Amino acid sequence: MKPGKTGLLACLLLTSSLHAETGAAAWLRYAPLNEAASRPYRDSLPPVVTSLGGSLAASAQQELIRGIRGMLGRTERIGQVSALLTERAIVLGTLGSLPPQLSLTANLPPDAYWLKTLNGYTIVTAQNDRGVLYGVFALLRKIALGEPVQNLDDRQSPRAPIRWVNQWDNLDGSIERGYGGRSIFWENRQARPDLTRVGDYGRLLASLGINGCSITNVNADPRVLASDFIAQVVRVAAAFRPWGVRVSLAVDFGSPQTIGGLDTFDPLDPRVAAWWKAKADELYQAIPDFAGFLLKADSEGRVGPSAYGRTHADAANVVARALKPHGGMLFYRGFVYDHHMDWQNPRNDRARAAYENFQPLDRQFDDNAFVQIKNGPIDFQVREPASPLFGALPKTRQAVELQITQEYLGQARHQVFLVPMWKQTLDFEIGAPVKTLVSAFAGVANVGLDDNWFSNHLSQANLYGFGRLAWNPDLSARRIAEEFVGQAFSLPARDSETLTGMLLSSWRTYENYTGPLGLQTLTDITGNHYGVNVEASERNGWGQWHFADAHGVGMDRTVATGTGYIGQYPPAVARIYESLETCPDDLLLFLHHVPYTYKLHSGKTVIQSIYDSHYEGAAAVESYVREWKSLEGHIDERRYHDVLAQLEYQAGQAELWRDAVDNWFLRASGIADAQRRVGHYPGRFEAESLSLEGYTVTPVTPWEAASGGQAVACAAAQCAASLRYQGPSGWYTLRVRYFDQDNGISRFQVRVANQLVDEWAAADRLPTSKIDASSSARHIIAGIALRPGDVIRIEGVPDGGEAAALDYIEVVPNGN
Amino acid sequence: MKPGKTGLLACLLLTSSLHAETGAAAWLRYAPLNEAASRPYRDSLPPVVTSLGGSLAASAQQELIRGIRGMLGRTERIGQVSALLTERAIVLGTLGSLPPQLSLTANLPPDAYWLKTLNGYTIVTAQNDRGVLYGVFALLRKIALGEPVQNLDDRQSPRAPIRWVNQWDNLDGSIERGYGGRSIFWENRQARPDLTRVGDYGRLLASLGINGCSITNVNADPRVLASDFIAQVVRVAAAFRPWGVRVSLAVDFGSPQTIGGLDTFDPLDPRVAAWWKAKADELYQAIPDFAGFLLKADSEGRVGPSAYGRTHADAANVVARALKPHGGMLFYRGFVYDHHMDWQNPRNDRARAAYENFQPLDRQFDDNAFVQIKNGPIDFQVREPASPLFGALPKTRQAVELQITQEYLGQARHQVFLVPMWKQTLDFEIGAPVKTLVSAFAGVANVGLDDNWFSNHLSQANLYGFGRLAWNPDLSARRIAEEFVGQAFSLPARDSETLTGMLLSSWRTYENYTGPLGLQTLTDITGNHYGVNVEASERNGWGQWHFADAHGVGMDRTVATGTGYIGQYPPAVARIYESLETCPDDLLLFLHHVPYTYKLHSGKTVIQSIYDSHYEGAAAVESYVREWKSLEGHIDERRYHDVLAQLEYQAGQAELWRDAVDNWFLRASGIADAQRRVGHYPGRFEAESLSLEGYTVTPVTPWEAASGGQAVACAAAQCAASLRYQGPSGWYTLRVRYFDQDNGISRFQVRVANQLVDEWAAADRLPTSKIDASSSARHIIAGIALRPGDVIRIEGVPDGGEAAALDYIEVVPNGN
Repeated sequence: MKPGKTGLLACLLLTSSLHAETGAAAWLRYAPLNEAASRPYRDSLPPVVTSLGGSLAASAQQELIRGIRGMLGRTERIGQVSALLTERAIVLGTLGSLPPQLSLTANLPPDAYWLKTLNGYTIVTAQNDRGVLYGVFALLRKIALGEPVQNLDDRQSPRAPIRWVNQWDNLDGSIERGYGGRSIFWENRQARPDLTRVGDYGRLLASLGINGCSITNVNADPRVLASDFIAQVVRVAAAFRPWGVRVSLAVDFGSPQTIGGLDTFDPLDPRVAAWWKAKADELYQAIPDFAGFLLKADSEGRVGPSAYGRTHADAANVVARALKPHGGMLFYRGFVYDHHMDWQNPRNDRARAAYENFQPLDRQFDDNAFVQIKNGPIDFQVREPASPLFGALPKTRQAVELQITQEYLGQARHQVFLVPMWKQTLDFEIGAPVKTLVSAFAGVANVGLDDNWFSNHLSQANLYGFGRLAWNPDLSARRIAEEFVGQAFSLPARDSETLTGMLLSSWRTYENYTGPLGLQTLTDITGNHYGVNVEASERNGWGQWHFADAHGVGMDRTVATGTGYIGQYPPAVARIYESLETCPDDLLLFLHHVPYTYKLHSGKTVIQSIYDSHYEGAAAVESYVREWKSLEGHIDERRYHDVLAQLEYQAGQAELWRDAVDNWFLRASGIADAQRRVGHYPGRFEAESLSLEGYTVTPVTPWEAASGGQAVACAAAQCAASLRYQGPSGWYTLRVRYFDQDNGISRFQVRVANQLVDEWAAADRLPTSKIDASSSARHIIAGIALRPGDVIRIEGVPDGGEAAALDYIEVVPNGN
Repeated sequence: MKPGKTGLLACLLLTSSLHAETGAAAWLRYAPLNEAASRPYRDSLPPVVTSLGGSLAASAQQELIRGIRGMLGRTERIGQVSALLTERAIVLGTLGSLPPQLSLTANLPPDAYWLKTLNGYTIVTAQNDRGVLYGVFALLRKIALGEPVQNLDDRQSPRAPIRWVNQWDNLDGSIERGYGGRSIFWENRQARPDLTRVGDYGRLLASLGINGCSITNVNADPRVLASDFIAQVVRVAAAFRPWGVRVSLAVDFGSPQTIGGLDTFDPLDPRVAAWWKAKADELYQAIPDFAGFLLKADSEGRVGPSAYGRTHADAANVVARALKPHGGMLFYRGFVYDHHMDWQNPRNDRARAAYENFQPLDRQFDDNAFVQIKNGPIDFQVREPASPLFGALPKTRQAVELQITQEYLGQARHQVFLVPMWKQTLDFEIGAPVKTLVSAFAGVANVGLDDNWFSNHLSQANLYGFGRLAWNPDLSARRIAEEFVGQAFSLPARDSETLTGMLLSSWRTYENYTGPLGLQTLTDITGNHYGVNVEASERNGWGQWHFADAHGVGMDRTVATGTGYIGQYPPAVARIYESLETCPDDLLLFLHHVPYTYKLHSGKTVIQSIYDSHYEGAAAVESYVREWKSLEGHIDERRYHDVLAQLEYQAGQAELWRDAVDNWFLRASGIADAQRRVGHYPGRFEAESLSLEGYTVTPVTPWEAASGGQAVACAAAQCAASLRYQGPSGWYTLRVRYFDQDNGISRFQVRVANQLVDEWAAADRLPTSKIDASSSARHIIAGIALRPGDVIRIEGVPDGGEAAALDYIEVVPNGN
């Protein structure tokens, strides 16, 4: 028994059983088709797969066998090239390798593929090996989606030649803004002993046509370029290589000094240039298919060319020229701004920074140096206009940077499908559509070791969507959502539509309960970027100001009276944005400052729209919970229950956001909600108003994170908060809002008239050690009969630094 | 937080989530009803449960809350007795405890219950506490089965006052004829430190109305009566007590000598009587609700009264009299026979033994001494007539012993629902129906620590069925199967019917492929009682002879020419059995010896009927696999896949039984199968005929356990067997029959033309260390394309004593 073959078989067997789904397979589950669905494929696909060789041939052939075995329940036979003309086969090979009898001619770009039925053969061909591998994934995708394969003639070329993911992984194994567990690459400042997950990740990336991965944090550790670290990079590159994924490193611009021992990192110093060249030579010696470098300089505390009065182009070019002889690329991040900006100067505007920094340097970048531009001018907020820089660098190679990891978009605890948001940028006309101006796509993925990569099964749709858009940005959001759902789940048509609808509406939903009208995500800007904190953006140098006060809200970025940011756009765009008449409601407060009573195009006032959208958003998440429950039995238990728990949590957070933001604006504006919801919560009893044993009242910061601005916390071994119920007899649901910090696991019990009715532990993974919006959580106890005089008693046992804190309890009639 | 309450809540929470089903909950899952199904119960059941006290009140009230919470999603409030008349409640209490306003009058026997709706109250009452508990389970069963509860007036009394299970658990933790793991009671000759599973078992038993459990093996260890062991029994009794289950011990009749230090165990010796009395007093001192003793004497090597020329009645009475003052019972097993019988004497007949031993002793047993009689005269075979002893002890209290553990019926590796078989005995007219002659039911359960108690989820139906029959033997097998399926699964109606049908047909199916026509289970009688071994019964003293030879088959038990066994029945029965004209086909060979060409009432010859029934049985199991697969998505993943694996295994075993028995009879009779199946196996290639590397040909015992009587075994580190395929091109299924012994985990790989197409480990739990019928297993590889000249190569790597042995490979066209 040759041990070398066991790996292959482990893969084969993996897909044969559905009952142990962990989410690791993502959209490459190859779930069995039913008899009727599989029939056309069984009838039309040849029983043999013959590979004509190439560097990725083993992966391509293995994947084809695995996929067909999973979906159709049969094992393709490996055909010998010598026997190719004697039996029908699925043929895998580049155009140049096809025999005369099966020859095909086309002018395909690198990575493009051509699926072609010819004389009973199913041919998967391409200009290069990577294209053949991509063609195999495309063929399998067609089968998974029930698309015909019997008379194939499908040529697909990627829109952009460079389609990379970035990982912000630190060498200690943590991931900056990563929410799916520890790094798949690094631990203890070395490559992990077991890099299996890197190979698995490479397979997922290859299935989307992603051909590169930057494997270290953009806030770079100089050690990544140390000579004695190269062996670690070599191991990661080897794990990715079978899938055609090349590795790049995010590097520190000070490396010539910190690692190289020079007394300078001045990009115009010949010693610095020589150091970069020698370093590149050394890397390519070890990794001939090394992809290049990613560079964040002069931003958020990173050193950069400004130290020597040099330009970003000087910085980019000194590195790019070192890479050039090897075919390597340099990506220079456009995310450069001053985070000590004077907030009292109404002309200051962080949104202008990227344009101001880079537009003057157009023409000055070498042809293997890309400026990598975030989709919006700020920082991955829930709603931003397209960055004006895309339209301002006609002579520079541009990469668009999209963030797959949901830093400001719920951090994988909220289900938010980002493709509709990305498409708004990609389709945006800024002279030409952004998607036609960029020649590279960079997606900040930040997958981790969690079974399902993101700690949220549905977050996988964002990696899927990024990859598909990078290949073909003309795909609709609906098409991408349908493809993901069709492969990642095995649902009847009606259920597929339900889930697709959930994905497609989720960005708007998240916007509705976080920051509508261009307010941006009203989160803890200077902290974890997660929980609600309306004023975190204000009165500091970070420049994410919305300037809400007693009279109005929004940042005036007009040319006429504001920061002039709108003037960075081409006139056709600027004209629309500059005028309140034409400015879209969705961007209103990003571009203008208006009074709360200002009427939107919708006819609503700004303040009422803020109130309403938060209620709509929170209600939409409650509907997601119901919709997801309707899928039970059609989804494997693990993923069903994981996602259900996530959505139920999200529903509680959406409610918190709703109340926090709406109350903040109620207090700021002094204008009541026309529907009388904000500030009125029937059945809600503040913890601080209950009869307390041991619990002490504590103010919460920010005040809007807790109902009434206060919570009760327990400093004793055990505390209790009691309420004597005085309403009518009947069946009720109890909703307890408590705080689940990350520095302990408190326990709670609820008793009604001394009868224990529920208990739970505050054991969720939430990004705060404080009593604040990020730790606020909700526990629901349904089906409790109450009668007047019943005492409802919540007992809390703190643990570690976690205070078993409570915000309120709601007693809600539930009809029966 | 009072730790004492945590247990309750753990129970509450257990039922709230379906995704972790292990099978431990069996038919007490309390799965949520859908909205429509739950509505009538939500509308009609009072929101409060008030217990009027009693020794089992806590269990009853907790169970009611747990069940309603699980099924209806709401938590009943515990009502105070003082407030009973002020609010509608579910009232739990004995008749004597009901307040005047809710008073009910009835003459209920012990353990009976009455469910009664009165003035808006739902009353669960009974003559004793146990009856109240049983009433709660009955109310919950109605809800689970969708039966109305709004206008209850349901009185149910048990047919027999004694309804016990027996466990053949050894003190070392093993279980004789137990297939569900280690003992829940014992380990290292002590009670287990954690007796949680005993309480769980007690709950399952109580839900059926089972009120006693014998907790030690009938092949008794004298130590169970040692004074320093009583504390261990006390612990088990305490774990059962909350569920009204009393414990009994199976004792060794030699105990006065072995434990007591006397020089005799003569039942008529006053010292022996005094010893038994003192021992009973000592036990009742420690366990006031101790139930009694179970005694196997003078059988299969156990000592008994014959040592002193005393009778079974003498033996039973000396023990019974010791128990009598405490209300204890003595069960004396009727399973007494000579297992060194001369097989060459055609008058000898083990089937006669019980009658001959006990019938003369009628009237001589004390009124607390029961004779415990197995359903049939032999030993739990797949088909036996009812024991004639039931009709022969009019003055003696009788218990019927039914075997829940599937000793001769597939040992929980085969799905066999035993209720239809048991009902044949219980309904059998032997003067009166057997069920009216017995006043006690004993079921040999032998559950173990496996998650689902039996290591087969569907085997739970047999414990369920035993309990329901013991309560009410008039229930139909269909009703019992429907009740089990309705509670143990949550299936749409059509799927419930599918599963019910599988259960109801399974006994006939098992009989068809093991031992039809009254042949009894043609298994390894002197060994593990599992795999096929047609001649194991013959030419030895154990007396399970079928006397098949070249000319005919069957044991002549007629009065006219045979052993006279039939004469033990009342004339009305004997007349039917004695005549070939009237003897039922199903018992023909149990009662008569006939030539193979004898024509059955069906018109078929005996030999053709043997052939046909084996093919029918094997085909039926294949249909179970398909039917079970049709339930996918409606059953939790764990149980779905566990049962699927069990059924697929069973299908392979049924095929083996089919071929083994049919070939044995083909060879014995020399009469060909009219359908030309037996001995003709298209596409089968014997391992011994393949090209072997390392493998050596070995004869198999019995010969019929392997195709061709031979296997190949590997004594090297690795061996291979190869076949050059010469049939037509196409898609095929490969079926490999190999041997999975219990003394190692061999590994197999299959390659086709050097391509690895499958691999597996022989890691099943099967009861043999030999290459024989019990280890014979089948591995199926579907969807393999073959072309002429392909080499199919099976590689085996032995492990420990397991030889990676192979029987054959079949190459079966699969249509695509």
